[in-house]
Amino acid sequence: MEKIKKIGVLTSGGDSPGMNAAIRAVVRAGAYHNIEVFGIYQGYKGMIENNIKLLSPRDVSNVLHRGGTFLKTARSEEFKTQEGRKIAYENLRKNEIDAVVIIGGDGSFKGANQFSKEFAIPVIGIPGTIDNDMYGTDYCIGYDTALNTVVEAVDKIRDTAGAHDRLFFVEVMGRDSGFLALRSGIASGAEAVLIPEKETIIDDLKKYLANGYNKKKSSGIIIVAEGDDAGGAYKIADLVKKDFTNYDIRVTVLGHIQRGGSPSAFDRNIASQMGINAVQGLVDGKSNVMVGLINRNIVYTPLEQSAKHNKRVNPTLLSTIDILNSY
Amino acid sequence: MEKIKKIGVLTSGGDSPGMNAAIRAVVRAGAYHNIEVFGIYQGYKGMIENNIKLLSPRDVSNVLHRGGTFLKTARSEEFKTQEGRKIAYENLRKNEIDAVVIIGGDGSFKGANQFSKEFAIPVIGIPGTIDNDMYGTDYCIGYDTALNTVVEAVDKIRDTAGAHDRLFFVEVMGRDSGFLALRSGIASGAEAVLIPEKETIIDDLKKYLANGYNKKKSSGIIIVAEGDDAGGAYKIADLVKKDFTNYDIRVTVLGHIQRGGSPSAFDRNIASQMGINAVQGLVDGKSNVMVGLINRNIVYTPLEQSAKHNKRVNPTLLSTIDILNSY
Amino acid sequence: MEKIKKIGVLTSGGDSPGMNAAIRAVVRAGAYHNIEVFGIYQGYKGMIENNIKLLSPRDVSNVLHRGGTFLKTARSEEFKTQEGRKIAYENLRKNEIDAVVIIGGDGSFKGANQFSKEFAIPVIGIPGTIDNDMYGTDYCIGYDTALNTVVEAVDKIRDTAGAHDRLFFVEVMGRDSGFLALRSGIASGAEAVLIPEKETIIDDLKKYLANGYNKKKSSGIIIVAEGDDAGGAYKIADLVKKDFTNYDIRVTVLGHIQRGGSPSAFDRNIASQMGINAVQGLVDGKSNVMVGLINRNIVYTPLEQSAKHNKRVNPTLLSTIDILNSY
Amino acid sequence: MEKIKKIGVLTSGGDSPGMNAAIRAVVRAGAYHNIEVFGIYQGYKGMIENNIKLLSPRDVSNVLHRGGTFLKTARSEEFKTQEGRKIAYENLRKNEIDAVVIIGGDGSFKGANQFSKEFAIPVIGIPGTIDNDMYGTDYCIGYDTALNTVVEAVDKIRDTAGAHDRLFFVEVMGRDSGFLALRSGIASGAEAVLIPEKETIIDDLKKYLANGYNKKKSSGIIIVAEGDDAGGAYKIADLVKKDFTNYDIRVTVLGHIQRGGSPSAFDRNIASQMGINAVQGLVDGKSNVMVGLINRNIVYTPLEQSAKHNKRVNPTLLSTIDILNSY
Repeated sequence: MEKIKKIGVLTSGGDSPGMNAAIRAVVRAGAYHNIEVFGIYQGYKGMIENNIKLLSPRDVSNVLHRGGTFLKTARSEEFKTQEGRKIAYENLRKNEIDAVVIIGGDGSFKGANQFSKEFAIPVIGIPGTIDNDMYGTDYCIGYDTALNTVVEAVDKIRDTAGAHDRLFFVEVMGRDSGFLALRSGIASGAEAVLIPEKETIIDDLKKYLANGYNKKKSSGIIIVAEGDDAGGAYKIADLVKKDFTNYDIRVTVLGHIQRGGSPSAFDRNIASQMGINAVQGLVDGKSNVMVGLINRNIVYTPLEQSAKHNKRVNPTLLSTIDILNSY
Repeated sequence: MEKIKKIGVLTSGGDSPGMNAAIRAVVRAGAYHNIEVFGIYQGYKGMIENNIKLLSPRDVSNVLHRGGTFLKTARSEEFKTQEGRKIAYENLRKNEIDAVVIIGGDGSFKGANQFSKEFAIPVIGIPGTIDNDMYGTDYCIGYDTALNTVVEAVDKIRDTAGAHDRLFFVEVMGRDSGFLALRSGIASGAEAVLIPEKETIIDDLKKYLANGYNKKKSSGIIIVAEGDDAGGAYKIADLVKKDFTNYDIRVTVLGHIQRGGSPSAFDRNIASQMGINAVQGLVDGKSNVMVGLINRNIVYTPLEQSAKHNKRVNPTLLSTIDILNSY
Repeated sequence: MEKIKKIGVLTSGGDSPGMNAAIRAVVRAGAYHNIEVFGIYQGYKGMIENNIKLLSPRDVSNVLHRGGTFLKTARSEEFKTQEGRKIAYENLRKNEIDAVVIIGGDGSFKGANQFSKEFAIPVIGIPGTIDNDMYGTDYCIGYDTALNTVVEAVDKIRDTAGAHDRLFFVEVMGRDSGFLALRSGIASGAEAVLIPEKETIIDDLKKYLANGYNKKKSSGIIIVAEGDDAGGAYKIADLVKKDFTNYDIRVTVLGHIQRGGSPSAFDRNIASQMGINAVQGLVDGKSNVMVGLINRNIVYTPLEQSAKHNKRVNPTLLSTIDILNSY
Repeated sequence: MEKIKKIGVLTSGGDSPGMNAAIRAVVRAGAYHNIEVFGIYQGYKGMIENNIKLLSPRDVSNVLHRGGTFLKTARSEEFKTQEGRKIAYENLRKNEIDAVVIIGGDGSFKGANQFSKEFAIPVIGIPGTIDNDMYGTDYCIGYDTALNTVVEAVDKIRDTAGAHDRLFFVEVMGRDSGFLALRSGIASGAEAVLIPEKETIIDDLKKYLANGYNKKKSSGIIIVAEGDDAGGAYKIADLVKKDFTNYDIRVTVLGHIQRGGSPSAFDRNIASQMGINAVQGLVDGKSNVMVGLINRNIVYTPLEQSAKHNKRVNPTLLSTIDILNSY
């Protein structure tokens, strides 16, 4: 295999805080290896539309601490077709790009994997999703920031819950996994946490609440992952309300504030490390892998495995909630 | 009139950040004047249930910076009846309480006004509402904190809006007034702000958006006050969506995070000043007034006037949005 | 007087959060009046070095929420000489700039005033200083943000002060005035505040502390404005230490974190209003004035008056500290 | 060994954010195991002075999110003597306390180890120090919060550094280790980081700076761990200044703000886990060990090993700074 001279980098799928830090690390690690790095704007869409621009190390000054992604991200139906991917490849060729770094989640990696195989172009993925559900890494970029955003929001909601003796159902992101819900529940002292990894039985929830209020607990927070099998926070609150007509039950859906904000120190650190090691991986001849952190070591996992995104939270951790937060 | 020896203090209605700072100021200003201060828990409900406790100056240590209200707040249907208010009065008598400080909004002040007249007991109101719509003061306690909470949330949403080229409708609190919506809109660079003080014409909004996107503006934020005449953010987004099917339109209702959080420096300062001057007002023989800040001076306004809460934002200020935020 | 067609805008002196919001408002208000706005980089230094660039309304996208000033600021010894100012003027002429908006403090306004008179070029000042000590406005841009930064820092220090029963001397900015010290002291519950506006008598401070500790107060915070007549926090702590050898006394100088950070909602709002009205003032033929907010109305004050910066905090407000924070 | 019925818990040494979350977890995990938990106030000092109070699960409501430690911490010279420790032990006996959980750093653990051996009382340590330098755990409670505090402070300083083209030396905590300095340096894009683990050669630093400025880099941040062998930030800045007289060099010592603040989600999570597993360890008959997290698993390390605190940052990680932050 020949030496890589030009790399493309793009962000794809849902954005997450720290993606800019990862882009910056790819660009500067590229410079360190004498590799030119091209920013591909709007993900695969930009690859097809040749929305590609050389990025100098100075072009990524002042992005480390910023939320979102300055390369933007977009969906591309066209990239799901072979014709689309062919155009994308030709654009890479035009720019003499030898390899691509994809920052995103499992959907983005599936596309990357297929693309890499069709056109024999090296591809490395960097896991960026607040859901933290990628296989092959302990932490995904953006998860720690989103967790802090949720916890700060729940701290605020608890102020008003406590003032009014109210029960709040707070819905957080997480379609397939409960990392954000469970860890924010522990950190905010939530009375209960409902996650996709465990069947939610409404009658059990009602019993738990009845018991809590019997203990003279007058206000409370229940965290609901959006992907919980019993439905979202509004639906579950409705089911509970019927039997707790004398309680003041409220619902808050935290929504898109969870995707934004200046990345935490933790996310900036892992984004920097992953960015450096994505480039290192390409230099070392790796392809079709995702760079991840397992036990604080850099690990490369085949995209095929990581794209199945079967990392799910261990529901036995829910016992922490039972032990600590039921008073 | 005899010298006041014992004061009761309560928080009522919706809670707002800085209420604890106001309670603290009342308790300590009381001590300064050799007046004992009693905390009445859960607002008028606690007055009826004699949920009343002496507060020493040290009891309010470590509350200055906390959101919510440690005296709690509650609705009381009973206080709306003469029988209820009579019981409440008798409880004050039992505790030898000579006067009451009410921290809350216009609904609370209406009750206070009636109560004061029926039983000839001095009452002074302190305006605490994130809506900032009380007549007789430039600023209500909690408004500045809520404004910062909204602006920080919109900053986060803008990160993800910009990454995806999305248009967000963000609903903020404000049933009758647009202070929070307008000022957060200016401060966050929102493309448009919809407030109760100005009729919302959906066709005009559509034209504005069409024009904005023609100028190649690809993402945007529209702030909607919950009390806007065209409906909440979800309804307005639906009306707009039909004609902008190619845009990715999202809705976020910020909800109860706006009521919580550690109060801003501004809110702690005005809460401290208002608390001191509520007690000073009682010492000076004032009654049935709200203490407020107008042009940074302490002003006492009859509760009857302030309780009409007709302070509304000047819709001509919307021109600031037009001048600054349409690019 | 002829219609103004091109305006220059610069930031000068110490930077303060919200300066970017003010620049943005000047640029976009210019566009509203069909006036071109040029950014003059690095203050008067850039004027002399012709470091001047046209700014379009889109060039100031995404700066509203950022601390610092993207136009940068610098000292210029050369601008203090007539030769220097002449070169500066010639550069304005080259760029056909008709008028200048100066965002800064009193030192910057003195230079602006002299420059305007020498070359008959209209100049308008916008007050930006965290010290808040400009005559002609209730609030300067950056003061509210700096106040919140100080209060958040003192909240953190209080955590550790309380854990250890320590007495902290915390030095905050303010060479000539005590706004930041006094208002942060009220908002953080500081046990004492030492400001330039009032003579600091170390013996009185010692008595106060001795009394406080006799009351079993075990930890505490004393805020010292850097310009206090008794010296900075380190010096005062040294003087006190001798007589309190059994106490654990610590000193923290908050330093330059006070100048940075994303501006608060309040600062973004006043910066936006002042920027719009600086341009409006020029359009209306005003010159050699500072735009300010007095009682929430826009007021133009001659630069000669505002540049004397004799606004000082009213030391009677220190009674608030005595009433509220001595427990 | 008999079943443990009563546990004492104390915080000792420098406080760190998340200690309250750990105390709460110990108290509630105790309740889960039907063990009574006693708070020992002011560390070993309180053990000697019998400042000990039963804590119910409800007594630790509302402390999870608070900085500092409500049990307080103090130094105790007396505990370093055998007489002192004997009195301490007798007080435990009086309260029928069977075992003790110590939350603190290596100094506290040395005392605990000796005490446990002398009096055959089970002791378990929980690592709480922002320095993160305890052997036997990847993370200590408070480190992540302090890291974010530093990064937010440096973000603010960069605003003003960039506005003025200044070079800042920022001193952060870390007497023996550079975790805080190195990770905050990566996360804030610091141009250089000086840590105790690597000899600081002033000439090399000067060369690096000269090179940076030649590349037209006009502002910068250098993070200095307080325990760096070349001295603190002030001393190093002085040494550098001589050769860079044309640069505006400033120094900020972040100080005690690093110890305070509401704990991050990460610290609340690890504090909760460690607290639960400290009690579990005692129930399982463990003694003289520290509970830690290694590769996200609970690990118990003999106090003798952990108290040597020889965990130091790997200086090869400094290459991350070289690769990413030299532009």
